[in-house]
Amino acid sequence: MREAKEAASRDPIRNLIDLMARLPGVGEKSATRMAFALLGNGKEYAYTLADGIRQLVDRIQLCSRCCNLTEEDPCSICCDPDRDPAIVCVIENVPDLLAIERTHEYRGIYHVLHGALAPLEGITPDKLRIQDLLERLEKEDIQEVILATNPTVEGDSTALYLRNVLRDFPVRVTRIASGVPMGGDLEYIDRATLSRALQGRREL
Amino acid sequence: MREAKEAASRDPIRNLIDLMARLPGVGEKSATRMAFALLGNGKEYAYTLADGIRQLVDRIQLCSRCCNLTEEDPCSICCDPDRDPAIVCVIENVPDLLAIERTHEYRGIYHVLHGALAPLEGITPDKLRIQDLLERLEKEDIQEVILATNPTVEGDSTALYLRNVLRDFPVRVTRIASGVPMGGDLEYIDRATLSRALQGRREL
Repeated sequence: MREAKEAASRDPIRNLIDLMARLPGVGEKSATRMAFALLGNGKEYAYTLADGIRQLVDRIQLCSRCCNLTEEDPCSICCDPDRDPAIVCVIENVPDLLAIERTHEYRGIYHVLHGALAPLEGITPDKLRIQDLLERLEKEDIQEVILATNPTVEGDSTALYLRNVLRDFPVRVTRIASGVPMGGDLEYIDRATLSRALQGRREL
Repeated sequence: MREAKEAASRDPIRNLIDLMARLPGVGEKSATRMAFALLGNGKEYAYTLADGIRQLVDRIQLCSRCCNLTEEDPCSICCDPDRDPAIVCVIENVPDLLAIERTHEYRGIYHVLHGALAPLEGITPDKLRIQDLLERLEKEDIQEVILATNPTVEGDSTALYLRNVLRDFPVRVTRIASGVPMGGDLEYIDRATLSRALQGRREL
């Protein structure tokens, strides 16, 4: 609330530019353009946007089962009777979940970690939704955990960490395949991806 | 208000992404990143941002003299006793005004048109603050009008239009210089700019 009080005494344009510039991918210049666009587009749009921001944080919560962002708890994916609750796909963030949903291939359920391990930035296992996952493994009848964290240093270490923790549970643990993307040209693929693709080769 | 009601029944994430994507320079992808950042950064920031947007449009109005955006009417530039009210610089938009202010060179006052002529997009002279400028010329003791619209097709036609309209007034009308920018290399300057620079050559 201190921040809100300070804002009241400042120039509203400067204040909004500073606030907007904290959003990802928004710098000083684009924040300025946005502020002037808000002033030029009529009050109704600005009010609707302000309400939209409030409603977003007021109405969206974490699903108590899979930690997905949702209005209703549990979320629509956990509630879907057509999905197989025995397969749990572990992802870093909700946009990753949405990306997998867009494939229309996956019919299991999810567990959102809300990040990946990065000890140097202070993101240790207790900062992620790992404990919730272990509790689910005890309570629910889960047959397979698919580790779908990103193929980055952080995502790979998170997958490795989970692989070790999950040894204590009678569950199949798999990792999504890494390799040359579809439509890719070997000539232009980076070395790391190409060596992953070679390591992960399969019988044809 | 219809828009606000519709929003209440929709998914708050989808709703905010659509609203954000209407801001300049924001597409579907960056709007999505922003929405998830708002959900991840704690409620206080989201509330402060929503309030900042409301305050912006509630507290900022047009200066009744120069049409600058301001909290107090008339604006701080029009009220400044150190400025010369006999020189009026005409610009398209407030960001252009701020750019001129940053030079710390100009000590006259301003008139903001809020756009430039673009008849094909429906921006005719009556859509701009041209009538207000003519009224100022009648009421105030203005000696010089500097036409500082952008050196674009729209800005140039606006300057030309104003030049014609202002013939009826006993006032000096000037246009800012166009040419090779400082630090520019002739080799890389576009043809239009270079031919402007040649046309605008002066005795040394």
